[in-house]
Amino acid sequence: MSTADLVIYPRWLIPVEPAGVVHENHALVVDAGRILDILPADLIGECYQPSQTVKLPQHALIPGLVNAHTHASMSLLRGLADDIPLHPWLHEHIWPAEKRWMGPEFVRDGTELAIAEMLRSGTTCFNDMYFFPEVTAEVARRYGIRSCLGMIVVDFPTAWGAGPQEYIAKGTALRDQYRDEPLLSFAFAPHAPYSVADNWFREVRTLADELDVPIHTHVHETAGEISQSMNLYGKRPLARLAELGMLTPDLVAVHMTQLMDDEIAELAAAGVHVVHCPESNLKLASGFCPVARLLASGVNVALGTDSAASNNDLDMIGEMRSAALLAKGVAADASALAAAAVLRMATLNGARALGLERDIGSLAPGKSADLAAIDLGGPELQPLYNPLSQLIYAANRAQVSDVWVAGRRLLRDGELTQMDIGQLMTRVQRWQKRLSTPLN
Amino acid sequence: MSTADLVIYPRWLIPVEPAGVVHENHALVVDAGRILDILPADLIGECYQPSQTVKLPQHALIPGLVNAHTHASMSLLRGLADDIPLHPWLHEHIWPAEKRWMGPEFVRDGTELAIAEMLRSGTTCFNDMYFFPEVTAEVARRYGIRSCLGMIVVDFPTAWGAGPQEYIAKGTALRDQYRDEPLLSFAFAPHAPYSVADNWFREVRTLADELDVPIHTHVHETAGEISQSMNLYGKRPLARLAELGMLTPDLVAVHMTQLMDDEIAELAAAGVHVVHCPESNLKLASGFCPVARLLASGVNVALGTDSAASNNDLDMIGEMRSAALLAKGVAADASALAAAAVLRMATLNGARALGLERDIGSLAPGKSADLAAIDLGGPELQPLYNPLSQLIYAANRAQVSDVWVAGRRLLRDGELTQMDIGQLMTRVQRWQKRLSTPLN
Repeated sequence: MSTADLVIYPRWLIPVEPAGVVHENHALVVDAGRILDILPADLIGECYQPSQTVKLPQHALIPGLVNAHTHASMSLLRGLADDIPLHPWLHEHIWPAEKRWMGPEFVRDGTELAIAEMLRSGTTCFNDMYFFPEVTAEVARRYGIRSCLGMIVVDFPTAWGAGPQEYIAKGTALRDQYRDEPLLSFAFAPHAPYSVADNWFREVRTLADELDVPIHTHVHETAGEISQSMNLYGKRPLARLAELGMLTPDLVAVHMTQLMDDEIAELAAAGVHVVHCPESNLKLASGFCPVARLLASGVNVALGTDSAASNNDLDMIGEMRSAALLAKGVAADASALAAAAVLRMATLNGARALGLERDIGSLAPGKSADLAAIDLGGPELQPLYNPLSQLIYAANRAQVSDVWVAGRRLLRDGELTQMDIGQLMTRVQRWQKRLSTPLN
Repeated sequence: MSTADLVIYPRWLIPVEPAGVVHENHALVVDAGRILDILPADLIGECYQPSQTVKLPQHALIPGLVNAHTHASMSLLRGLADDIPLHPWLHEHIWPAEKRWMGPEFVRDGTELAIAEMLRSGTTCFNDMYFFPEVTAEVARRYGIRSCLGMIVVDFPTAWGAGPQEYIAKGTALRDQYRDEPLLSFAFAPHAPYSVADNWFREVRTLADELDVPIHTHVHETAGEISQSMNLYGKRPLARLAELGMLTPDLVAVHMTQLMDDEIAELAAAGVHVVHCPESNLKLASGFCPVARLLASGVNVALGTDSAASNNDLDMIGEMRSAALLAKGVAADASALAAAAVLRMATLNGARALGLERDIGSLAPGKSADLAAIDLGGPELQPLYNPLSQLIYAANRAQVSDVWVAGRRLLRDGELTQMDIGQLMTRVQRWQKRLSTPLN
């Protein structure tokens, strides 16, 4: 008989690994923030004396979702400019708004809004790329969500710094500061091949090897990016990155809507991770990522929402559904990206991309207790033949009831435990007024 | 000063016509089940003495959504067989289950489940195609939702009848019986070109002209349907339907994933209506309907979910979002199918396809008070720059708060007013047990 901090009794427990397994009437035991055991519920009495028990009689318990590509604070730009092609969207709306308003206060309130939405929809870890990561880090720590912070590199100056040299200095200093913070990790985040010069990619390559961190970047997002690169460099961005030594197992390549067969083979051989952002790719008409072909070639594909400015939510439950549906359409195969596979993308594959798979991404003894519970009891989810299918194809974010990160309950029966949401809404409304002001 | 049954005060009122208009702080006046007036809220006091007022201070009020293609009672098959290609999905799962279980009780409980879900997600009218339409009609009447019932025709026998002759006799008799029922309308529903012989299409053509009703059919759902038709008839299904005199303004053609330019021009010239079912087309990997091209050619395009067996929900809020996102990807144009256009597809265009546009589909004096209110107050919907954009790109079915059909409130603050949902769930669970039994 052992003591334990917490025993959770879900109706269904979906560990993600082994693939496709759904345990019924099992319990998950948590101690000191980690999963201690998973066992049939009726054996708990003989084995554990928990301080706390939580019953989830019509719920599925899954690993907390890993949003593998965000720009969290851009949530303040949600719906500012919709139905607009990429170039005017960026040049006439998003960038001018950021130039006018982006700063520590913007990043603080925008990140807080993003964290509220992510926790309410079952996300326990996000991989972020934005300016003022020290503010993102502070907000993420305050609310207890796990994050991987991008040490951003981009060729132009912003409110955060004069250029690549300053960005790298600030980013690496931040990583040094938080080296022992268990819920924070870091990645280099050179923005994209079209916005970062060769010498800075080389610098990132050297530093990433020294520090042993992932490299998070946008690649092959649009056809226009390819043709621009052909004009400027005489080669496709992926070929350029290959020459710069970037195609290694620490590369986390986001979007990848433009891929030829030999490029897919190259990614697979190099162990590059791909992050698929289906809703953003559709909304900005960027193209279609060949997810089924990537997975069939052995590439690790994770899932991300991108920012709420191009989605317009940070809901990984909805993103899994969109990914599963779209992959079937793109592959012309209704069996492509089945429910278990897309849940794996949104959990374990994301953890692998971030180098966190020993700690998170599946439910297994020893891993951190990063958990999400989804209530499958409502009429929209009946009848229920297969909880995994129901989670992907019939549930939505409104069914997420409870979330734990490292054993700490951050969402309880749909309510955030650590955040004053009314106070946050007041600040967000102030931003809405500011951002609605004409720019010129 | 006039009396009125009801005044609703939403924060935003989106009438759908004129296109893109959003009224702020207007009120909608209802009397005898119809919209009497729409006017600035501060003028109500001088003009109307209502029996009842409803305040919706953070809500958008829109016309009730029109789901232009359903097989309602198949909700009992939700999630029975996912991630399976179309042919084995139909032949090994759906059809055997229907053959074993489909009957009046199945249609009653399945339709009731569908109506619960539709009302809870803002749908006030559905265009159904299934067997035992007399049961569907009875359930729809009981719960007060508007419906268009398919007088189905298909070449094979079922529990409902021996074949086309009996189906047509039963369907037309049902229409005669309910001719004066204001919430019921009827359409012929020859199942598809591959399942209905020429002579029965001719019979439907003749009868539809006599009775002045729409003709609701699946057309060009998959590439396989085209090649099968080329083999059997030496022509594409649409060409065959044209020869049979079917391409007229009473044709409601569902799916249309396979379309050549000259076919789009032909549909436009003939005034044929198209129903787009994006999620079903993705999930079954059927193909991509060229929605932006159809609309640009002047074709009236409506929106439908198809059944919950291939979606897996009947949520038109989500379907609008999927349609808007997918259309941009397919058209390679981020401005394709903007928020106002997709809301119109899901309301007025659906009403037009069913010949009901004088009565429903937009908010205008004289039209029936078929209404849906969506709460735009939650954190996932902030900041809010444009309520129309927020409704399409950030809201989901969980935000639907209130629904009226012909002035009768069927959903009040998220609760169904006319249905005992607990009792329904008990019956649905019984079906789940039955349908889980191996078929052999």
